[in-house]
Amino acid sequence: MPRQVDPAARRDAVSDAVLAIAADRGFTAVTIRAVAERIGASTSVVTHYVSGRDELLRRAVQREIAARKTQAEAAIAGRSGAAGLLALVRWAAADLDDQVRRFWLALLIAAPVEPVLRAELDAFNTWWDTRMRGLVAESGVPDPDVVADTVDVVVDGMIIGRFEEPGPVDAARRDRVLDRVWAALGLEASSPREVGERRIRRVTP
Amino acid sequence: MPRQVDPAARRDAVSDAVLAIAADRGFTAVTIRAVAERIGASTSVVTHYVSGRDELLRRAVQREIAARKTQAEAAIAGRSGAAGLLALVRWAAADLDDQVRRFWLALLIAAPVEPVLRAELDAFNTWWDTRMRGLVAESGVPDPDVVADTVDVVVDGMIIGRFEEPGPVDAARRDRVLDRVWAALGLEASSPREVGERRIRRVTP
Repeated sequence: MPRQVDPAARRDAVSDAVLAIAADRGFTAVTIRAVAERIGASTSVVTHYVSGRDELLRRAVQREIAARKTQAEAAIAGRSGAAGLLALVRWAAADLDDQVRRFWLALLIAAPVEPVLRAELDAFNTWWDTRMRGLVAESGVPDPDVVADTVDVVVDGMIIGRFEEPGPVDAARRDRVLDRVWAALGLEASSPREVGERRIRRVTP
Repeated sequence: MPRQVDPAARRDAVSDAVLAIAADRGFTAVTIRAVAERIGASTSVVTHYVSGRDELLRRAVQREIAARKTQAEAAIAGRSGAAGLLALVRWAAADLDDQVRRFWLALLIAAPVEPVLRAELDAFNTWWDTRMRGLVAESGVPDPDVVADTVDVVVDGMIIGRFEEPGPVDAARRDRVLDRVWAALGLEASSPREVGERRIRRVTP
């Protein structure tokens, strides 16, 4: 019995299925057949939208990466220098949806063996490097390269650390670490507005 | 044609196969059949050594974790306080074999859905927390909890960051980040010997 389906909704359902399968079982489990099963359709429905497995992966990953970039720019909200950097880092260290976090780890693991994933991840990393290092340069700190490398380590650590501690993120604890790192990087005093924000947060119980 | 096999060697081969499959395709791909195929034996050879899939996973993970702990203690080499902490962190941030790194990430991903993996990972995390936080406490820094949380974030970040940059680790770059974090945590001056070591490294081209 043919059903009326909105092609855009169907395309989204296909990418949703790719994300869910990759998050649960890794990218090797993402096949045209597995996606079809998950959306309750035949494989020909899936291949109607994508030319093959590579395009299936590429579309889902590109959609997810585009959504993350849009979120990041909304968080930065036009700020520059140290204030923009703090906003970007807070966004990156914010609590991710559990499935989204597992999806990104699956992407990191699979990238070395799936060229289509490698290409998308490289493009995202280039964007991140350019954006983050640009804000570091604008902030005027000495040793911008060490500062940027340290920011990378801390952001990666905050993301992966969430795997070891289930449950909601302890924001106060995360902020204490960020404050400490921020001071170490010489970024604390560079943005009076952000320092003010931190002070307000500190006196709030 | 029956072959003479050393049971210990066979057991190691089974665990090696679990590690390799998990690293390449995640723990969902680790089955008795997949392990048997990988070692070129029948499934009954595998089930001769383990009672089922859970025990297969448990043994391989316990062996890997025991090896990592032994390495860590060798790196600490009886040092205490800040010097012991620096040795532990350097060991944790050192370049891991690519397969071992992918195995640990696979473990992190699978732990929420495989109770046997969750139990082993929790035991390892308890050991790490006790060891690392003990050294922080001994170092006498103020705010030991913030220091320990920051160490966790930095170590996790250094491990995951290696996925984004293939090739050998840039030790000088990693050490610059560690030096910066170390200073931020108030640990720099607490161990004259380690400060001396760092100074020597800095003047070496």
